[in-house]
Amino acid sequence: MYLEKIREERPLIHHITNYVVANETANLTLAFGALPVMSHSIDEVGEMVSHARALLLNIGTLDKLQVESMIVAGKEANNLDIPVILDPVGAGATFLRTDSARKIMKEVKIAAIRGNIAEVSILAGYQAAIAGVEALGGEEIIETSVKELAHKWDCLVCATGVTDYVSDGRRLALIKNGHPMLSTVTGTGCMATTTLAIFLSIGEDRFESAVEGLAAFGIIGELAAKKADKQPGSFHQEIYNVTYNLTDETISRMKKVEIV
Amino acid sequence: MYLEKIREERPLIHHITNYVVANETANLTLAFGALPVMSHSIDEVGEMVSHARALLLNIGTLDKLQVESMIVAGKEANNLDIPVILDPVGAGATFLRTDSARKIMKEVKIAAIRGNIAEVSILAGYQAAIAGVEALGGEEIIETSVKELAHKWDCLVCATGVTDYVSDGRRLALIKNGHPMLSTVTGTGCMATTTLAIFLSIGEDRFESAVEGLAAFGIIGELAAKKADKQPGSFHQEIYNVTYNLTDETISRMKKVEIV
Amino acid sequence: MYLEKIREERPLIHHITNYVVANETANLTLAFGALPVMSHSIDEVGEMVSHARALLLNIGTLDKLQVESMIVAGKEANNLDIPVILDPVGAGATFLRTDSARKIMKEVKIAAIRGNIAEVSILAGYQAAIAGVEALGGEEIIETSVKELAHKWDCLVCATGVTDYVSDGRRLALIKNGHPMLSTVTGTGCMATTTLAIFLSIGEDRFESAVEGLAAFGIIGELAAKKADKQPGSFHQEIYNVTYNLTDETISRMKKVEIV
Repeated sequence: MYLEKIREERPLIHHITNYVVANETANLTLAFGALPVMSHSIDEVGEMVSHARALLLNIGTLDKLQVESMIVAGKEANNLDIPVILDPVGAGATFLRTDSARKIMKEVKIAAIRGNIAEVSILAGYQAAIAGVEALGGEEIIETSVKELAHKWDCLVCATGVTDYVSDGRRLALIKNGHPMLSTVTGTGCMATTTLAIFLSIGEDRFESAVEGLAAFGIIGELAAKKADKQPGSFHQEIYNVTYNLTDETISRMKKVEIV
Repeated sequence: MYLEKIREERPLIHHITNYVVANETANLTLAFGALPVMSHSIDEVGEMVSHARALLLNIGTLDKLQVESMIVAGKEANNLDIPVILDPVGAGATFLRTDSARKIMKEVKIAAIRGNIAEVSILAGYQAAIAGVEALGGEEIIETSVKELAHKWDCLVCATGVTDYVSDGRRLALIKNGHPMLSTVTGTGCMATTTLAIFLSIGEDRFESAVEGLAAFGIIGELAAKKADKQPGSFHQEIYNVTYNLTDETISRMKKVEIV
Repeated sequence: MYLEKIREERPLIHHITNYVVANETANLTLAFGALPVMSHSIDEVGEMVSHARALLLNIGTLDKLQVESMIVAGKEANNLDIPVILDPVGAGATFLRTDSARKIMKEVKIAAIRGNIAEVSILAGYQAAIAGVEALGGEEIIETSVKELAHKWDCLVCATGVTDYVSDGRRLALIKNGHPMLSTVTGTGCMATTTLAIFLSIGEDRFESAVEGLAAFGIIGELAAKKADKQPGSFHQEIYNVTYNLTDETISRMKKVEIV
């Protein structure tokens, strides 16, 4: 029912995001049937977010001015009860990234964080192997950090990788959808966050919406790889084709979710 | 004859534009056979524009510094008699956008504006439904606002949608080319503006050049959709394939233009 | 052996680059099996570069702040003995570009420069026809300027075009790989620079690594054009497909390199 609702209501998703994937996440938003707006100026973000149904903050190419805009937009979203989704790209790689993610989380009430396991672990105060913004992490599962961080910050925590972990501090879901080809295209993590924002914008139970959204994105990866395995250029394009044609029935049939 | 001339003369089109579609509009420019340059720094735009045959100002991800650069570049373009094309993305969505578009139009002599009907209506002082930068407008035609604005500002006004309207304040053209798939890829409005800038850069009569350019872009959408209907990723790629192979004969044969 | 080593070691390539091709060069880096990070803030570049195995500075959409960041990152890279690769996009088109390229070269020890012949000539003090950032140059070969600049600056100079020239001031290589379709997609010059950075990050002899890298990129163009000639949208996508599946054996078999 999520996809049907997205295509009917066409929620506007305000992104303050990096210039590497701005086009790609806008196109993914459109392929889902939602509407994107990319806007970063401190002189308009507070007003722009008032038109939106979710605010996505992605620090992939942050600088100090952009972080200030994120906080202004985030506070206004809080006032208006619009969910704020944070993607702490590269947290742990530099002090600026770690500190900015923490600062945003302190000043803005975050509805959901989506990062790889290294980024989430760092924010939870754990050590993790991280190289630039690309996690080199293996299979070792940090369920504890996911749940702890969710509890500590009172928000959804989504740590994605071979398995995705979603927790609201109480419930924990393991999602086993996805495909290795997703790591051959830049910004698929950012796309997962965009998907999360879209699903949270129209869903009622945030935990369930997040789980459904991340399962959907994993399934998109699987279906795109069926059409274009070992061909990252073609795979990238198939992501949009598949998303546009995805149905709620396909999600139901293909999703591999385990609630712990 | 337009395409032939573009491919022979290879006009340089200086874009000061948003980071969402900078790559896509550069690639469209190349596919037409023209040359793109993207440059925004106030310390070079006045010099860069002197090499160009058209200046395109797109406020899709504006901030105050960028608007200052646009005005500097625009004034120099005016001095050099280079046409300036304005895309007021999201005018009406925030005060910053509406005010910036108006400020640019006040300080720079604009040759042509291209926006959706909502954006154009707002600039003409009308109310219009607008959500973010994506117009949700229906079929209701604001011929009056197009013509009025063209007359008031003494420039071409192009309001694009299911039907495109072009007016120089005196003449009015209705263009019925295009395809619904164009709304499934971000930046197709910006691409229409790039097309307009290219055609204005080499054409003699601005009204006729604008009509030919927007018809050409609609035809590109139709031909791309023939190859990739319901597949936004593939459709996006076909836009460049089709543009590169488009001929003046195809435009003549397919264009649906009515001069009122 | 280069590709094998890249895929095994997965070097991180720190890009401070333009917003037109940030996505495309990140995707090319991934397709090679290396890892990209795009980061420009002066508050993190010095730290970010310490994780990297090469630093790429591309002035395609420069402004003064970005140039300052480049110098900070470049100096830190010098301290850590990480190779710095400069792409002086549009040098000669504006004073800002020419001066910034010269300033970077003065303050930072550059391992390699990659530009078109016009850009390289300008930096060497020669005049050259240049229109925006796209060189309109013909076949006329400026071997002298390539070698002179390499000698003068004590770095690799790579001037790419129909023939690519690589010199370390002593040796000179001519590379005759490549395909005209490469000029139909924006950022293929920037992609050549990314390839160069990746090969320099893992190679031992810099001259040989640069020659191998630029030959590899030319071969990628040839193979992509075999699959998608006269179709710039499809050609663009094939670049990533081909890169991902390229082998050292194919490079050895197809490369056309002449050492003078």
